[in-house]
Amino acid sequence: MNDNVAVIGVGLGNVGERWDKSLRELAIESIWMAFEDSGIDNVDALYVGNMSSGPFIEQENIGTLIADFAGLGSIPAVKIEAACGSGGAAFIEGYMAIKSGMYDCVLVTGVEKMTDVLPSKTTSILANASDRDYEAFHGVSFVALNALVMRRYMHEFNVKREDLSIFPVISHKNAPFSKHAMYRKELTHQTVINSPMIADPLTLMDCAPICDGSASVILCSEKKAREFTDAPIIVSGVGLATDTLGVHDRKQMTTLSAAVEASRKAYKMAGVTPKDIDIAEIHDAFSIMSALSLEDLGFVKKGEAAKMGLEGQYYIGGQLPINLYGGLKARGHPVGATGVYQIGELVYSLRGDGRVDAEKGLAENIGGSGSTVSVCVLERGD
Amino acid sequence: MNDNVAVIGVGLGNVGERWDKSLRELAIESIWMAFEDSGIDNVDALYVGNMSSGPFIEQENIGTLIADFAGLGSIPAVKIEAACGSGGAAFIEGYMAIKSGMYDCVLVTGVEKMTDVLPSKTTSILANASDRDYEAFHGVSFVALNALVMRRYMHEFNVKREDLSIFPVISHKNAPFSKHAMYRKELTHQTVINSPMIADPLTLMDCAPICDGSASVILCSEKKAREFTDAPIIVSGVGLATDTLGVHDRKQMTTLSAAVEASRKAYKMAGVTPKDIDIAEIHDAFSIMSALSLEDLGFVKKGEAAKMGLEGQYYIGGQLPINLYGGLKARGHPVGATGVYQIGELVYSLRGDGRVDAEKGLAENIGGSGSTVSVCVLERGD
Repeated sequence: MNDNVAVIGVGLGNVGERWDKSLRELAIESIWMAFEDSGIDNVDALYVGNMSSGPFIEQENIGTLIADFAGLGSIPAVKIEAACGSGGAAFIEGYMAIKSGMYDCVLVTGVEKMTDVLPSKTTSILANASDRDYEAFHGVSFVALNALVMRRYMHEFNVKREDLSIFPVISHKNAPFSKHAMYRKELTHQTVINSPMIADPLTLMDCAPICDGSASVILCSEKKAREFTDAPIIVSGVGLATDTLGVHDRKQMTTLSAAVEASRKAYKMAGVTPKDIDIAEIHDAFSIMSALSLEDLGFVKKGEAAKMGLEGQYYIGGQLPINLYGGLKARGHPVGATGVYQIGELVYSLRGDGRVDAEKGLAENIGGSGSTVSVCVLERGD
Repeated sequence: MNDNVAVIGVGLGNVGERWDKSLRELAIESIWMAFEDSGIDNVDALYVGNMSSGPFIEQENIGTLIADFAGLGSIPAVKIEAACGSGGAAFIEGYMAIKSGMYDCVLVTGVEKMTDVLPSKTTSILANASDRDYEAFHGVSFVALNALVMRRYMHEFNVKREDLSIFPVISHKNAPFSKHAMYRKELTHQTVINSPMIADPLTLMDCAPICDGSASVILCSEKKAREFTDAPIIVSGVGLATDTLGVHDRKQMTTLSAAVEASRKAYKMAGVTPKDIDIAEIHDAFSIMSALSLEDLGFVKKGEAAKMGLEGQYYIGGQLPINLYGGLKARGHPVGATGVYQIGELVYSLRGDGRVDAEKGLAENIGGSGSTVSVCVLERGD
C-alpha cells in the first residue's frame, strides 16, 4: 500500500501589521486560499499551530473557533503549541493523523495575532517560550538569550558579528519576489551592520519582526492527492526533537542538538543525506540561528556557515539556496504560523516558481531558543 | 497485525490548591507515578494537555519544559489545547501517534496550575474558552453561559433546578474512595439546593472547583503492553468533534451536538452501543452539563437524565455508575488536566478496584460550553 502523505493545497496570507483583520479572519483568509489551491472542498480535521492566543488576544479554544468561523463543520480541531515551533509541530501532527488512518484529509493552519498588544507586552509574551522561572524572571528577553549564544559562538569559532550579518541580506534578497512577505525589499550588508544595536551583538536588522499572519496547507494521502494533481508534493521525512528549555543547561550552547536529532530522524525517514537537499527554509529568527541551523542540520561544518554565506552559496544559484520567500527576517515571523509558512513556501519552490529547479527541500522550524525543533523533508512526486 | 492501543500506566496527582508545587513539579509528580505504575522506563513522545499556561503562569513551550524537567530526554513534546477538553484531545493525539507507527510508547500528561492568580483573573482566563468577541466581551462568564443553557433546558423539558442538583450528590458519593480528589466527602441533596446562588439557576455546589492538578497515562501498542501485563486496558474507540464556539449560534442550545457526534464515532470504532457501556466518566463541570452529556451520549432520552439520577441509576449498583472517583465536581477540575484524570480513573475502575465489575467504560471531556467534545471507550483486554 502506498501510504505516502502529500501536500495538495497552500494558502499564505499577507504578513504584516494586519490591523484590518482579527485572528479568526486571518485564519479564514489563508484557509480559503488553501482550499482554492487544492481543488478539494472539505477536510476531516484541523490542526492549528499557534503559540500564544491566550496572552495576545484573550482567546483559547482556537481550534474550534477557526473550524466554526471558517465553516468547516463539526470536524475535530485542536491547537498545537510548541512556542515559535508550533507551526512545524502542527504540520507533523497532521502528517501523523493521516498516517494513523484516522483521517484522509487534514488542514493545518498556522496563525498568530501579535500586534494587538503593546510592544513591551509582546516581548514579555515571547519570553514565555523560554524558562519563565530561570531565564525570563531575571529579565533575560528572547533577543538577549540569542545575543548570549551569538557572543559565545563568535568566541568559539572566531567569527565576527559582521560576518553573521550576511544572513538577513540573504533572506531579504528573495523578498521582492515574495508576494506575502512583510518587507519586500533587499538589504545591503552594510545596512545590517550599521543598524541600531538591540542586544549586543545583535542589531535590529539581525532580528525577525513582530507581525500578524496565517498560513494553511492541506495534507492527504498520496493516493487521494493524485485525484487532484499529477505533481503532488510528498512529505518524505519528518522529525521532531527537544533540548533543555534553558540555554544554560546545555552541554554546548552553540549547538542546536534538537536540530541535529530532528534532522537525523527526518533524513532517515526520507532516505536522504544533507547533500541530497536542494533548497531549505531555515528558522532565521536571529542571524545566529541561521548559522547554527545550517551547521546542525548537517549542511556545513561548525563555524563555517557565515563564510559560506559570504561566498554566496545560500543565494539562488549557490550550493543551497535558502529562505526563498524571505525567511523569518523578511517574510516576517508571526510566531506560531511561521512553520506553516515555511512548508507552503517549500511547496511553491518545489512545484516550480521559475527560480529554482529543486527536487527535494527541507524546512526547519525552531521553538524557544532551540529547545524544540521540527524538520520536514518534502519532495516532488512527479 | 494486532495494532490495538493500550493504557499501561496511570499516575494521578492530588488535586487541590497545590501551592506547594509549580506546574512543572505537578507534571513531574504524575509522570513518575505513571512510569512506576507501568513498569517501563522510557517513552518515545510526550503530549501535554493544558488550556492556559500562558495567562495562568506566563509560560508556554510546556511540552519541552516538562520533557526536560521530568528527565525524558530529547523526545518530541508538544502541548495540545482544546480549552477544558485539552486532556481528552491530547489523549486522542497520543492514540493516533501510536496508530501512525511513528512511536511505540507515548506519555500523555494533563496539567493545569490555576491558583497562582487571583480568582477574578481566573474567571477571565476561563472565559477565553468561550468566544471572546461575541460572548466574554459582553461580560458573560462561563458560569453564566451554563446558567443560560440550564434555564432553557428547565423550560424545554419541564425539569426543576432542584432535580438537576442531584448530579453533584452523585459525583460526591464516590469521592471518599478517591485518594486524589480535592473534596473527599459526600454532599446531601439539600446542601446543593441550599448553597449560595452563583448564576441563577446554578448554585455554588452545582459548579466544579478551580484547582491545580496533573494526571499522566502511558499508551503503547497492545503487543508491547502484553510484555508488562496480562490485563491491559484497551482503547477501543475514540471520537472528537466540535460545535459552534458560541452558544447563541446553535440550532439547539440544549443539545451537545459535539457529544452526539464524538460518541457516534467512538461507539462505531469500538463496535458498541451505549447499552454496552458499564461505567462512564462524565464532564460534570456544571450540573446541567451532566444532564446534557448523559442524554447526548445516548444513555437516556432527552429531558430524563435528572429523573434517572434521582432514581439512583448513576450510583454504584445502578444502571450506569458515573464519576467513580468524584468527577469534576469532587475530584476537582484542573481544566486542561481533567480529560487525562478521567482516562486514568476509568483505567482504575476497569482494572478492578473492588467496587464495580466493569468490562467497558467511557470518558467524555468537554471544552468550552460544549464546543469541543472528546469521547473515549476503554475496555478490559484480559
